[in-house]
This record gives sequence, structure tokens and C-alpha cells, in this order.
Amino acid sequence: MSEVKRTEISTLGEFCLIEKLTKEFKLKNKSSIKGVGDDAAVLDYSGFNTVVSTDLLVEGIHFDLAYFPLRHLGFKSVIVNLSDIYAMNAIPKQITVSIALSNRFSVEALEELYFGIKTACDAYGVDLIGGDTTSSKSGLVMSITALGVGEEDKLTYRSGAKSGDLICVTGDLGASYLGLQLLEREKQLLQSDPSIKTDLENQKYIVGRFLKPEARRDIIDLFQKSGLKPTAMMDISDGLASELFHIAKQSKVGILIEEDKVPMHPDSQQMALRFNVDPINAALNGGEDYELLFTIDPKDMELVKYMPDISIIGEVKKLEEGIKMLSTGGNLFDLKAQGWKHF
Amino acid sequence: MSEVKRTEISTLGEFCLIEKLTKEFKLKNKSSIKGVGDDAAVLDYSGFNTVVSTDLLVEGIHFDLAYFPLRHLGFKSVIVNLSDIYAMNAIPKQITVSIALSNRFSVEALEELYFGIKTACDAYGVDLIGGDTTSSKSGLVMSITALGVGEEDKLTYRSGAKSGDLICVTGDLGASYLGLQLLEREKQLLQSDPSIKTDLENQKYIVGRFLKPEARRDIIDLFQKSGLKPTAMMDISDGLASELFHIAKQSKVGILIEEDKVPMHPDSQQMALRFNVDPINAALNGGEDYELLFTIDPKDMELVKYMPDISIIGEVKKLEEGIKMLSTGGNLFDLKAQGWKHF
Repeated sequence: MSEVKRTEISTLGEFCLIEKLTKEFKLKNKSSIKGVGDDAAVLDYSGFNTVVSTDLLVEGIHFDLAYFPLRHLGFKSVIVNLSDIYAMNAIPKQITVSIALSNRFSVEALEELYFGIKTACDAYGVDLIGGDTTSSKSGLVMSITALGVGEEDKLTYRSGAKSGDLICVTGDLGASYLGLQLLEREKQLLQSDPSIKTDLENQKYIVGRFLKPEARRDIIDLFQKSGLKPTAMMDISDGLASELFHIAKQSKVGILIEEDKVPMHPDSQQMALRFNVDPINAALNGGEDYELLFTIDPKDMELVKYMPDISIIGEVKKLEEGIKMLSTGGNLFDLKAQGWKHF
Repeated sequence: MSEVKRTEISTLGEFCLIEKLTKEFKLKNKSSIKGVGDDAAVLDYSGFNTVVSTDLLVEGIHFDLAYFPLRHLGFKSVIVNLSDIYAMNAIPKQITVSIALSNRFSVEALEELYFGIKTACDAYGVDLIGGDTTSSKSGLVMSITALGVGEEDKLTYRSGAKSGDLICVTGDLGASYLGLQLLEREKQLLQSDPSIKTDLENQKYIVGRFLKPEARRDIIDLFQKSGLKPTAMMDISDGLASELFHIAKQSKVGILIEEDKVPMHPDSQQMALRFNVDPINAALNGGEDYELLFTIDPKDMELVKYMPDISIIGEVKKLEEGIKMLSTGGNLFDLKAQGWKHF
């Protein structure tokens, strides 16, 4: 947050505030007919399907402003939603952003948040088309809805995996969770001794994965170019294990993955060991990776093999075979989905 | 809230909770291809424009659960968004509902809320297609996004009013605001003396207008049947005066309304006087009426004259004539838009 200038939100009117925050957002997509400024936005998706996803982010639950810079929060809150649209094999085109906040936030703080939102919109070619700004008695609450466009026969659901399909993930897993653990620990250290020198500079990879994740548009582009259509797909927000359970349940299939095929970054493996966590647990249950988990027909394996940054981690099985992992040591374990942590 | 049974939210998992709350919502619209249960919902609006509106409702700011029954809150939170879609001369088809709440709320309380949401969805033919459920450290926060479908050449914006057009409103104004004032007063009386007999039974009209407003689908249906297309339209959520300023600003026109043409219910007029408020002020600045404010070409006056529940309250003027009201006493006043009350 800016230390220099502080403008009270109450000095602006609601519409003036919205205008101030959104004036740099120009509509880029032909499908965005009308954006901010009427009762509703208007879109033209004629001939295509509309894909919609929404997320609610609550301060103290989903983010801690003690170590989450507002511009990164703005950026990530958009990315999280775009990732959901890409996970349908669709292209995000528009977002709405609603925020509730207390007068603890200045206009400058909000401008930081919207700077991050705009950076994400520009990077991913997405239009901000509406939203709502209101006050809150406690923390910051953000609600983002993303809309996108997809071709009916190319959309990928969680329910399409078939026994024999190969299970793939993009990128590497577990880094974001470990970045969060590190930030939490450094926060506690700083609270006990503000003069302490923190370790964050040497951990740019994992901290960056938590604070400024990217959505895998590049992979969706590759799918379009190569003509590959996954049989099922979703993004990894709650953790690989939890997402595998979703695909298994909705596709009515079993799952077998191999521990040594699950991609991790060396920094993640080292940090897991420093935290006395088995690295595979960070990869399975960490979450917030925003990588893509998808299944493909075996005949498409050749296509995937030459795509960068994709790992084949296992195979779709029959329902009765359960959801299992073959460990590096050669043992077969039942996978467990993480519980719900927020309540 | 139910006094009988209390199930802690923590006893259910997130997906189990969502399933429990949404299992009675069946998709009704052909355009709803895929609803709750994937990364994103999928809609097919081919050939039409998509209309999107979103609202964020915060406990303690937008509603007080001391006198707002949860099922009414659920109903009203949907209506508020549908009203925005109708105000574009479009038809709402889908909503997403995201909620953040603390463990102060039981599953039964949430079911009350969703009962109201479902009642509204059924009454207006709208599908619930997604959302997000998370925890909050303080009160209840609801974010609703409504999507609808419109024909490109029938959509009405705030910017289309022309000098000489007639200004119309539906229904009557000010009742909701006065209902809120009455509920606030009764709450204070009950806090000082819980045995006091309240006046609410005799004030069903104004209290009902606040607690369970309806959206004016009937008027949009009439427009479609008669072939009338307003030149500009919006819904009245912040108050007639404030909305007239929006139309004036976006259409670059002046406004003249007549005090004695502004429709009020007799109960509203009486209650305003009991509160020592000039009735016209309740109608101009009260808000939350969810009636439609629209302008028509004078050649369409014959069409409107025979439509029920529509009042012609004034005329669109040239920009330089300002935004004025002719009082019942024959004086010309400058209208003032209400300030922003939330910060």
C-alpha cells in the first residue's frame, strides 16, 4: 500500500470511484458490446457457447494482506477465475469484479488492487465489464465472475475420462503451498523480531508461485493448434488428490498415478524437506497450483509427448479399482482427498 | 432461522454442502447446457446477446438479519439482479450465487436462504448454474451474478433518451424505503422493551415492498407483446432522483418531472407523514423500489397509456435545461441526487 498519499474513499462518490478505478480498462474483445456503466453488461457470443465461472475471496480466509501485496492480490484473483475458463478448454473474454471493503482501505490501496487486475486483463486479453463496489464492516471481500467462449464440441468436462486414458498435468505441483507456508513462517518470525533477516529472496520460485501464479493459456493454445481434445480436464486449485477425486467421481472411473511421475520443482522438494513434509504430500494436497489436470485418449499420446511442460502421471482405471498411487518404493496406496479447510 | 434443528456447517464437506443446497435446483432453460459441478457453467445463447449483471450484498450494510428473514433475503437477493437484466429489456436465464459466512450460521439457516433463492428462480424461470461457498470471519456476504438473453436491436441502455421523450415509471415509489424505516424503528423499540406490540401487521404493504420486492417481468413482457421499445431504461434501486441523473448524464439530456405525477401508494404517503418526511422525498430518494424508469418516443404514448401500472411523470429536455421538478405548488426545483451512503 502507498505510504505517501492517502485519499479517503468517502471523499469520492460511488460512481466517481468506479470511474476512477476502471477508466484505464478499455474493451478489447469484439464480443464485449457494452461494459461498465449500465444495469448490465452486454456480450455477443453468437455461434459459440458461453462459459461462466465465479469465485469469492475473503480476507483472512483466502489471503493475508500482511504478506500479500494488493497488486498481486488483484492479479491473482483474476488468474484464479481465468484458470477455470481455460480448464473448460475455452477462452476467457470478460470479467466482472465486485469488492466490499472498509474505510481502512484508501483510494490509493484500491488503485494498487486494480493495477493488478488490469495487468492480468491486459496479459490475458480479457475485458473488465462490470461489478459492484460496496463497503464492508470488516475485511476486504472480492467476487470475480469470468465469462468465456468455447466451441460446443471442444469443451472439456470433468466427466469425460474413460478407463485406459492417460492422466496428464502441466507444470509442477506443490510450490504454491510451500510458498504460502514460508510466507506464514516469515510473518511469525517478523512478529517476534522485526529486525530479523528473512529468507524470501532465496525462495523466489515458490513464493512467486503463490503470489503471482499464471493461468495455462499456453497449453490451451497448444491444444487448439494441435487439434488435441482432452477427454476430461480441470484446473488444480484444491490440490491434485482432491481434483483426481472429482474426475473419478464425475467420470465414474478409477485412478492410478505414480509418485515418481508427479512433477515437482527442486526448490519445492527442498523446501518440503525443510518443513518436514514429504514432498509428494505437498504436491498432492497443497493446492493453488493453477496447473491443468487432464486425461487423454492413448492414441493422442504422441501429440502430448512433444508438448512442453506436460507430464503423464498415470492412467484412468475402472471404477472398482479405486483411486490409488504407486509409491516410489513400489507400494500401492489409497489416495485421500483433503477435507474442507475453511470451516 | 430454525429454532429446532441446528447442523454445524463443519459437519458437511464443501461439496456435500453445495450438493445439499443446490440439489432441488433443476435446469429449466435450453440455454443452460451445464450448471453446478464443473470448473465453469456452459451456456448456449447463439444468435442473441448475453446480458450480465452482478451484485454484492454485505450483512450490516445491505441487510440486517434482525428483521430480514433468511428466505426473504435469498428471494430479494435474486430479484435485485433479475431487475437489472429486465432493465436492459432482456430476459434473465441464469444466476450464480456465491456466499461467504461464519459458523454462526447453521446448515438449516443456509437452507432457509436457498429456499428463498429457489422460490425466486422458480417464479422467474431462472437456473442456478454455479457459485462458490466459503467462510467469512464476520457476517454473511452474498455475491450474485445474473445472465440473460436479449435481441441486439431491442436492448435498452441508459444513454438513449432524446429531448422530447416522455419519462415513465412503473408501480409506485418510496414504499420500500418507508418499510425499512419502520422495521428499523420497531427493532429499536423491541430492543428497549421486548414486550412491546409492534405496528408491522398493519403495514404489510410497505414492509412487504422492502422484504419481498418483485422484478417487473410483466412490463418487459408487455413491451415485447406490444412492440414498444423504450428509448432508455433502468431500474430504480438507488432512488428515482439518482436514476434520473444517470439517464441525464449518459443520454446528455435535461429532465423535467412533475411532483404530482410521481406515483405513491396511500400507505407510503401516510407513513412518510408519520415519520415527518415529505412524501415526495421518500419517492425521490428512498430507493430499493425495483420499479422500471424508462423514456419513450412521444409517438408511443398511445401504447403506454393502455398499459397497466405505468405513470408518465415528465419529459426529457435539452441538456442545458438541467434536471428539475415542478412542485405541486407550481415551483420549479433543481433535483438533487442522493450521496453515496455506504462509506
